[in-house]
Amino acid sequence: MAITVVGSIAFDTVATPFGRRERMVGGAATHFALAASFFDEARVVGPVGDDFDEAALALLSTRETNTDDVERVAGGKSFFWAGEYGWDLNSRETLDTQLGVFEAFQPKLSAASRQADVLFLANIQPALQRDVLEQCEGPRLVALDSMNLWIETARADLLDVISRGVDCLVLNDAELRQLTRRPSLVGAAREALTWGLSAVVAKQGEYGAALLTADGFFALPAYPLESVVDPTGAGDTFAGGFVGYLSRHLDRLDDEATLRRAMAYGTALASFNVEEFGTDRVARLEADELHERVADLQQMTHFDHARVELAR
Amino acid sequence: MAITVVGSIAFDTVATPFGRRERMVGGAATHFALAASFFDEARVVGPVGDDFDEAALALLSTRETNTDDVERVAGGKSFFWAGEYGWDLNSRETLDTQLGVFEAFQPKLSAASRQADVLFLANIQPALQRDVLEQCEGPRLVALDSMNLWIETARADLLDVISRGVDCLVLNDAELRQLTRRPSLVGAAREALTWGLSAVVAKQGEYGAALLTADGFFALPAYPLESVVDPTGAGDTFAGGFVGYLSRHLDRLDDEATLRRAMAYGTALASFNVEEFGTDRVARLEADELHERVADLQQMTHFDHARVELAR
Repeated sequence: MAITVVGSIAFDTVATPFGRRERMVGGAATHFALAASFFDEARVVGPVGDDFDEAALALLSTRETNTDDVERVAGGKSFFWAGEYGWDLNSRETLDTQLGVFEAFQPKLSAASRQADVLFLANIQPALQRDVLEQCEGPRLVALDSMNLWIETARADLLDVISRGVDCLVLNDAELRQLTRRPSLVGAAREALTWGLSAVVAKQGEYGAALLTADGFFALPAYPLESVVDPTGAGDTFAGGFVGYLSRHLDRLDDEATLRRAMAYGTALASFNVEEFGTDRVARLEADELHERVADLQQMTHFDHARVELAR
Repeated sequence: MAITVVGSIAFDTVATPFGRRERMVGGAATHFALAASFFDEARVVGPVGDDFDEAALALLSTRETNTDDVERVAGGKSFFWAGEYGWDLNSRETLDTQLGVFEAFQPKLSAASRQADVLFLANIQPALQRDVLEQCEGPRLVALDSMNLWIETARADLLDVISRGVDCLVLNDAELRQLTRRPSLVGAAREALTWGLSAVVAKQGEYGAALLTADGFFALPAYPLESVVDPTGAGDTFAGGFVGYLSRHLDRLDDEATLRRAMAYGTALASFNVEEFGTDRVARLEADELHERVADLQQMTHFDHARVELAR
């Protein structure tokens, strides 16, 4: 069993009210794999440049993530992103984006990556997502992330890849509304579920995430933290936990209770991610800490419905 | 047993993407009382003008809300608010505010209102909230709402009234951060709990609400609706359900499970409020519909924590 993830592998320079860090290993595929590798072998597909040294590769290989399909482009430079967060950590300013080796990226999956049971199409150009999906050999679960840029510039491609066998969208709630052109979360999910999806996850930043299926609605708050040090990668870490948990329960993908537990593992993992800069916290995270936080989340959201007699 | 609420009684003109309605009976005290009156006698304290006719008074008296302390100011005009919402119903534009009889409002509580076990200080000038609190005779539960205007212009007064015996803040999350000058919800609540409060409720609009006490954290999503027709009064309706439920459990105010159930009743009531314009939906709401929605919320937030064996 394995989970193939295609997406950015990057160096991130991040400034937040808590400090500044230069050229940390980051990118959607990195954050996803660090989380998903708790559950199954994660196989990362994506390009890096000569600047991606052994230390960077070692970090990407945490919990035995497989990097056979990390393509090292001779003479190339790794994707680079620099951004800054203010006190309101829900909004951020991008200071610099250098696509580097991503500009000419053409995914080439090894046989092992093509045969993985689970595929996560992280946020890259929809045409590349389609290319990867077409290379894969009947994955049992396909989840997809995207962003406002592609919704604005490549919406038809994005809808096309979704219609070719994506099971689950994992999008920010604003992007879900933008993609479906529906103002309410419920309406947006209802629309998306007509596209052949079985589940829609709306990431809501500091407010948590919601899961919408044909059977129901589930919402889970973010784990409450006194300080969020660096939100970069929270959504991809969430996706890694969510998809990772599901990869261990492929015979129960239509079970609402299983999907909800997957949401809890994603939420717990995302909360660790934001506690420190970059991948620092999740890279050294232990399984027991993760279980404990899921149990905390269960306790923090539980209530018993005891009827009270009402006046009338 | 009774709940005294002091706050605005108003006429609201509201435009949303779903339509426009002129001079509906509204105001914080009105929305609060319509919700709280499911649980106990609500006693409304506030001024209205000659324009507040019998039909308006009849609506305010729904579920036998007591209006003895509604002060009719001869020659005065009722508070008037006009606003417009776009598709993003979390933000709104105020088009007109006419204080009318509120400008010279000096609260005068009857003996029965002074002796109520529960007091809700809806969003009015903090000096008036203090005046009302001082008139009351040892209420067992005092909850308070406020807004950015008072935090900016009368913060010292607001902190003063809070320190004089308020048990519970019910604020929008952004206002809670503004009041406490802490960027995170957890930090803001921790600060507020040092002021003698026993509970802090952060209203989060479409995302629901969070409850923070010395014992713990609880968050509940908003009830998912395909269409939110008019969000006006949602926060006051929530407060009416929350405080109303607690007024029936005054011997269990330190019980986290009771507070959580109160959150659920507030959340359910708020969801009915926004389904139609103004007070239309809550005015004709039946107890069974309310119980059913609380049960739905319980189902929508529940998950079992089944441990999965992690790779390492």
